[in-house]
Amino acid sequence: MKIYRYPTKNIWPELLQRPVLEQKEISVLIEEIFSEVKTNGDKALLAFNRKFDQAETETVMVTEAECKEAGNLIAEDLKLAIQEAKENISRFHISQKPEIQKIETTKGVVCWRENRAVEKVGIYIPGGTAPLFSTVLMLAVPANLAGCKEIVLCTPPDKNGNINPAILYAAMICGISKIFKTGGAQAIAAMTLGTESIPSVYKIFGPGNQYVVAAKEYAQQYGVAIDMPAGPSEVLVIADEQAIPEFCAADLLSQAEHGSDSQVIFLTTDLKVFNETISAVGQQIKGLPRNEMANKALENSSFILLDSLGEAVAFSNLYAPEHLILAIREFEKYIPVIENAGSVFLGNYSCESAGDYASGTNHTLPTNAYARNYSGVSLDSFVKKITFQHLSKEGLQNLGKTIEIMAEAEGLLAHKNAVSIRLQ
Amino acid sequence: MKIYRYPTKNIWPELLQRPVLEQKEISVLIEEIFSEVKTNGDKALLAFNRKFDQAETETVMVTEAECKEAGNLIAEDLKLAIQEAKENISRFHISQKPEIQKIETTKGVVCWRENRAVEKVGIYIPGGTAPLFSTVLMLAVPANLAGCKEIVLCTPPDKNGNINPAILYAAMICGISKIFKTGGAQAIAAMTLGTESIPSVYKIFGPGNQYVVAAKEYAQQYGVAIDMPAGPSEVLVIADEQAIPEFCAADLLSQAEHGSDSQVIFLTTDLKVFNETISAVGQQIKGLPRNEMANKALENSSFILLDSLGEAVAFSNLYAPEHLILAIREFEKYIPVIENAGSVFLGNYSCESAGDYASGTNHTLPTNAYARNYSGVSLDSFVKKITFQHLSKEGLQNLGKTIEIMAEAEGLLAHKNAVSIRLQ
Repeated sequence: MKIYRYPTKNIWPELLQRPVLEQKEISVLIEEIFSEVKTNGDKALLAFNRKFDQAETETVMVTEAECKEAGNLIAEDLKLAIQEAKENISRFHISQKPEIQKIETTKGVVCWRENRAVEKVGIYIPGGTAPLFSTVLMLAVPANLAGCKEIVLCTPPDKNGNINPAILYAAMICGISKIFKTGGAQAIAAMTLGTESIPSVYKIFGPGNQYVVAAKEYAQQYGVAIDMPAGPSEVLVIADEQAIPEFCAADLLSQAEHGSDSQVIFLTTDLKVFNETISAVGQQIKGLPRNEMANKALENSSFILLDSLGEAVAFSNLYAPEHLILAIREFEKYIPVIENAGSVFLGNYSCESAGDYASGTNHTLPTNAYARNYSGVSLDSFVKKITFQHLSKEGLQNLGKTIEIMAEAEGLLAHKNAVSIRLQ
Repeated sequence: MKIYRYPTKNIWPELLQRPVLEQKEISVLIEEIFSEVKTNGDKALLAFNRKFDQAETETVMVTEAECKEAGNLIAEDLKLAIQEAKENISRFHISQKPEIQKIETTKGVVCWRENRAVEKVGIYIPGGTAPLFSTVLMLAVPANLAGCKEIVLCTPPDKNGNINPAILYAAMICGISKIFKTGGAQAIAAMTLGTESIPSVYKIFGPGNQYVVAAKEYAQQYGVAIDMPAGPSEVLVIADEQAIPEFCAADLLSQAEHGSDSQVIFLTTDLKVFNETISAVGQQIKGLPRNEMANKALENSSFILLDSLGEAVAFSNLYAPEHLILAIREFEKYIPVIENAGSVFLGNYSCESAGDYASGTNHTLPTNAYARNYSGVSLDSFVKKITFQHLSKEGLQNLGKTIEIMAEAEGLLAHKNAVSIRLQ
């Protein structure tokens, strides 16, 4: 970990750097996988399961029996926890449904917007070390609330050809019935192009490794939309003298354990909190099963002592963290000046894990400074907003001259004529 | 124009085709332009002005004097028209500001979202045959309402090194002071990378030719966001027996005059309206200055007689038009079943030109079937929605167990620990 005490502003640009990612040139491989899925459909997916996941699978579709069985395979308290999280996520995301607001901009000219669900969406859930059933909730709940007609979920099988039962259970209670055993770039290709079993979709959501990320990028050439550009996860914690160093350390480590490319930043104005947090990180990391990853992430991470909270917020706005924790007394005062962040956690008891799992906010958030120009996933991500307008004859009489003058000045006479012919 | 009477559904896929665009391989050129702008900044832009726009320019920045002079160069009635359009656009877009809604998802757990402007945005306005001052309004008005701190506008100079005064006037009344004489891919490069004069931005908006489109796509590699993917403009008109053929023809032509790659689709259930609209198109096109383009666009365009309005709406939903005109008596009835469209115009007096210029809705809309998965530009396009959450000690006590169980099940023990340490 890198430690800075009162760095001058001229070295801030260096402190604001993200870890440089090793970019493998994988575009040829991605193209090959898309081409293979296009040509051979399900058969290609089964072969990829064998090749990349060492799994023998007879079909890609998860059966109803497998889903039902999942409910028996997981503990009762986990089921209840998943249900409670789902309820909170539902509560928060349903509040994002706007009322239709009709605006009469000129007498007789009424304009409004209505939400329409993206009809077909795909959710990708990675396999690997952690079964991300929480991400199933974060994507399937708003997809359902938005009214998406077709929700497809792809996730790679384990070596026995099975899907983690917690993933199946979460999908099942969200009403997703189209679950497929396929992972990596081939899953993205399948949802983009369609196969015998897997329907093609209009928008693809979900995290993944560099192959998945590259495949999602490539899928856009086929007109598919994606949730947002990807990057490694990060948290920035701002602490004042009332912050509790053990809490700060735990939050920093909960981010660091995500992966060796994660980054955590700790900013404080208090020397005691500074020193004690650094020491608590060293203590707590010892007990973590994923401490190797966390240690690696800490190498990219900075602990910075600053003069004022104003400076800390300014630094954070420049860094644009995915997660921002304000472990400060007067967090209310600083909310209005937070410009760039994905999700903000206020006070000593708002740990990032709350938002990661169960408070109700979405955990699919902009990383890698994308918080400057992207929002996290929300109900909005699953809808289009269509504008509607009605002009009465009187409305067009009121506005017609203006349209005619502007159309003519732009040299678009047919645009003008569409008005003139109606006013004659 | 292609004419179909009661086509069976098995040939619909053919009728739903967009014109195939000639894709020139221009990525090498785009890379070169970015590299040149990165190395030589303003100097490169001035050289590109000479090379691509045959314009001698001494600086790229438009002076205050030039802006003021613009007001003297355009007619008073055009000024008033631009002002009226601006007021309507403001009225409609300001209504898109959401109230902050705090949701208590669990007792002691409060979550909400707040809008924050994208701090720095760039607006590109093409030069060429039509001075698109209306697009200045469509992008600058919501940028201002959102509170974007830095709004940069780039547009190519004419052969005399000047910008069309209507573009300058529209920019001026929207309070944009950073206007630059640079066009094409080099303008996008400048707003992405920054030059001595032109600030780099976080998000770039606006239409353009294939070089601009390719440059916007390329800019995303630098972390810049763009408004939406591009494609040629289109309208789909659905008419019943009460539609007025001359109005329908005028609307179809107002779209067709945009460019030779535009597409217009006419669907009706009424044979008389069908025949008379086709004949009216033939009549009206003669008088248009841009009839060559319109004629070319009509070659890609279809006039289709269908059995029912239900079928017509189903066809439209599959086509996902940028603009949809419902020239039908019972448009109210069909609103709920419109699934995919950019902007919808209702009844005989809601011509597309109204939305293009002055009704208040935005004219920057998803083309090329992107209405299936993208919304048009709105106030939302200029903001990020940041989630905030506050958990009281009691809130974490209520939710803590759930978070711990889920984190443990995902194998993320540091996530669990961030809760446990607070509950101890």
